Amino acid sequence: MAAARRMVVVGGDAAGMSAASQARRLRSPDELEIVAFERGDFTSYSACGIPYWVGGSVNARDDLVARTPEKHRERGIDLRMRTEVTQIDVDGSRVRTRDLTEDGGGEEWTGFDELVVATGAKPLRPPLPGIDAPGVHAVQTLEDGQALLDALGGVEDSRKESRQAVVVGAGYIGVEMAESLTVRGYEVTVLDQAEQPMTTLDPDMGALVHDAMCGMGMEVVTGAAVTAVETDGHGRARAVTAGGTSYPADVVVLGLGVAPETSLAREAGLPVGGSGGLLTDLAMRVRGHENIWAGGDCVEVLDLVSGLTRHVALGTHANKHGQVIGANIGGGYATFPGVVGTAVSKVCDLEIARTGLLEAQAREVGLQFVTVTADSTGRAGYLPGAETMRVKMLAERGTGRLLGTQIVGRTGAGKRVDIAAVALTTGLTVEQMIYLDLGYAPPFSPVWDPVLVAARKAAAAVQEERRR
Amino acid sequence: MAAARRMVVVGGDAAGMSAASQARRLRSPDELEIVAFERGDFTSYSACGIPYWVGGSVNARDDLVARTPEKHRERGIDLRMRTEVTQIDVDGSRVRTRDLTEDGGGEEWTGFDELVVATGAKPLRPPLPGIDAPGVHAVQTLEDGQALLDALGGVEDSRKESRQAVVVGAGYIGVEMAESLTVRGYEVTVLDQAEQPMTTLDPDMGALVHDAMCGMGMEVVTGAAVTAVETDGHGRARAVTAGGTSYPADVVVLGLGVAPETSLAREAGLPVGGSGGLLTDLAMRVRGHENIWAGGDCVEVLDLVSGLTRHVALGTHANKHGQVIGANIGGGYATFPGVVGTAVSKVCDLEIARTGLLEAQAREVGLQFVTVTADSTGRAGYLPGAETMRVKMLAERGTGRLLGTQIVGRTGAGKRVDIAAVALTTGLTVEQMIYLDLGYAPPFSPVWDPVLVAARKAAAAVQEERRR
Repeated sequence: MAAARRMVVVGGDAAGMSAASQARRLRSPDELEIVAFERGDFTSYSACGIPYWVGGSVNARDDLVARTPEKHRERGIDLRMRTEVTQIDVDGSRVRTRDLTEDGGGEEWTGFDELVVATGAKPLRPPLPGIDAPGVHAVQTLEDGQALLDALGGVEDSRKESRQAVVVGAGYIGVEMAESLTVRGYEVTVLDQAEQPMTTLDPDMGALVHDAMCGMGMEVVTGAAVTAVETDGHGRARAVTAGGTSYPADVVVLGLGVAPETSLAREAGLPVGGSGGLLTDLAMRVRGHENIWAGGDCVEVLDLVSGLTRHVALGTHANKHGQVIGANIGGGYATFPGVVGTAVSKVCDLEIARTGLLEAQAREVGLQFVTVTADSTGRAGYLPGAETMRVKMLAERGTGRLLGTQIVGRTGAGKRVDIAAVALTTGLTVEQMIYLDLGYAPPFSPVWDPVLVAARKAAAAVQEERRR
Repeated sequence: MAAARRMVVVGGDAAGMSAASQARRLRSPDELEIVAFERGDFTSYSACGIPYWVGGSVNARDDLVARTPEKHRERGIDLRMRTEVTQIDVDGSRVRTRDLTEDGGGEEWTGFDELVVATGAKPLRPPLPGIDAPGVHAVQTLEDGQALLDALGGVEDSRKESRQAVVVGAGYIGVEMAESLTVRGYEVTVLDQAEQPMTTLDPDMGALVHDAMCGMGMEVVTGAAVTAVETDGHGRARAVTAGGTSYPADVVVLGLGVAPETSLAREAGLPVGGSGGLLTDLAMRVRGHENIWAGGDCVEVLDLVSGLTRHVALGTHANKHGQVIGANIGGGYATFPGVVGTAVSKVCDLEIARTGLLEAQAREVGLQFVTVTADSTGRAGYLPGAETMRVKMLAERGTGRLLGTQIVGRTGAGKRVDIAAVALTTGLTVEQMIYLDLGYAPPFSPVWDPVLVAARKAAAAVQEERRR
């Protein structure tokens, strides 16, 4: 019998293990040996769930693990936990690994026929005084989440009258962590250097988030560039300095976003884009490398609206990338067509969503456009709980093609962005969108869905612009 | 100054008054005189909101009125309430009206340059013994709703230990009324002659609704054709007979659906389709009549998936039709492209949605297809409140084009149908749908949105079918 081909996976989270699982579905161990290396203690877990674990709505760490190492092994994947890949030898088609369980642990080489780079992302941690002090927490891995929970337990046991948390950065992770810490009874201050929280929205929409967060009792300080983390006599974080003001903190959480973790790949000479993310073709093959694949938070993906590649760290994409890579290695055929930049989040009962381009992003790629904002309600206005939802829409000048949609509102606001996401993917104009046959019944929507109200207004703006 | 052209509107609800309002926006009273006739007491109201008014979540009848007669008049519409149009004289370009406020009230003729027929729909009321007895209620107009509420008040005042309601028909209105009556403390029995409730779904999906309604304490009797309404000594309804069984009823509600109200139009020789709904072109002009327009619940619309026209009575379409008609009469240009058959409803916390074709509908128009059903959750499985959602998908054999989607689940299930509605409108295949960039965060969706889980399964079924 011919020796099996060997697939080697670097990184045991969503993209890597989805690739391994999908390839295994298509190829037996006799046909394809699959070896996966993970430097941590967990596989296939939901990093996006960490805020809800910290906030207490997820009970146990293990609930965030979609598939354990044991389950992967049962399915015929040779999974090596706490094993770090320290080098990719492209020409030699092999990777060097180190066993983290023993001090100065053994290094060895493993050859591959197909390599999957799924090294994920790392939280941004600017080089500021005190940033690495105990009490400053990132929330990217389950280990990070555990460390934060342990720290919170310590603070809570001290029975201080008021417990203060400072969250640095008001992006998705920042606002979600602000919610979790508020739920746990902390006085939360969120610091962000930008004009408004949520720079994934235009500032006028971010301002709505700002107001809502203040209404929830959080302090949100914008235009506040953090310059240092102050420490106490034991070297432990006790405050954050931003814009010359000191914000006391029993705990500091970093929510500054993430960057692709590609040092290994760059050292091996694999191509990266402006964000540092690996560049792949549509089949998720690293550009120029026939048998090296990459997916998940370590790659750049094609943004179908701007035509550029960008870094988007989201579990939903990582899973799809893994699926595509596994299908291709397994002898099938699949491609990942790209993204339109959809994201949704919430802070307490405020839902926040966007898809497509922001104003600044659209200008950056040379698009001319009109913008409108429309206020409406998520259900018929005469029903209880019909709260205001604001939809902002960008449409291309002349053609009227939808370029972007941002939504801020309460129940039912967030997932409405999917309507715009599909419209963007298929190139609809705002004029075409007006007549979309969306689900209507009073508990679900006014007769004109909020997205259609915005589309009508955008269509009118496009027509007005044409007449000029 | 030249005499103004005159636009005459028959019917003062959504389609008619939207047309009037839109035309008025574009044309001043000097240019266009607008006369609207309404035989009832209300304009521009939400018939779809009646179940929620009856159930008590809408406080007052007037809350369901989006725009009162006075408001329309303020905007320069000559609105004649309680005035019935009794004849349309197509050749003479005039309508005959009768004033319902006086006995044997005056009849007169009004000429038109443009006529809008917006006569709505009427509840189906099969010619059964007792069907017109007091105590048998339809819920199509605000007057119907008021009569039912008055009757319920009477029953509730009698302080019977248990109050029983029978709902005839388990479609949208039927299940919504079942909820409202349950909320009011009635023991509710729903009778339907079909195999399962919600014949707007395939029977296997209707069965989920059946089970859920039983779990809510409602009795749902299927395969039960109603043969009579039994009356008491005063001629008042006291029970409903179906399949040989008598179901006691303090109140009977008809939820058998509606038919286009087009007797007037048919007498005038205007063309109607198989459902009795008026046939129009894409500009909502009645076929063959340059200056007669029709919209709302009295027309058939093009179903973009089957290629046939069908009757779909929904306020959301009526508003769009009115908008299109008003734009065209006002000298602008607009068309209504058609529907894909989207509908959403709920019964207590169960959300029910569909778009596109059911299995039987697809077969009827000669389509061959695969079907799949996929169970998933509306949010990440590790969060509290992650309840099962079932998505059924039909995809065309060979091409893989999406043909229909049905969803039954709890919070967040219903409006997910919009994803499929836009995909249907734009002709996506289920293989293309797999990679849609939908909003993902744990409180909003698992990493694979339930619609994408179904799309993956459907794509696999299409591929399997191709290999045969």
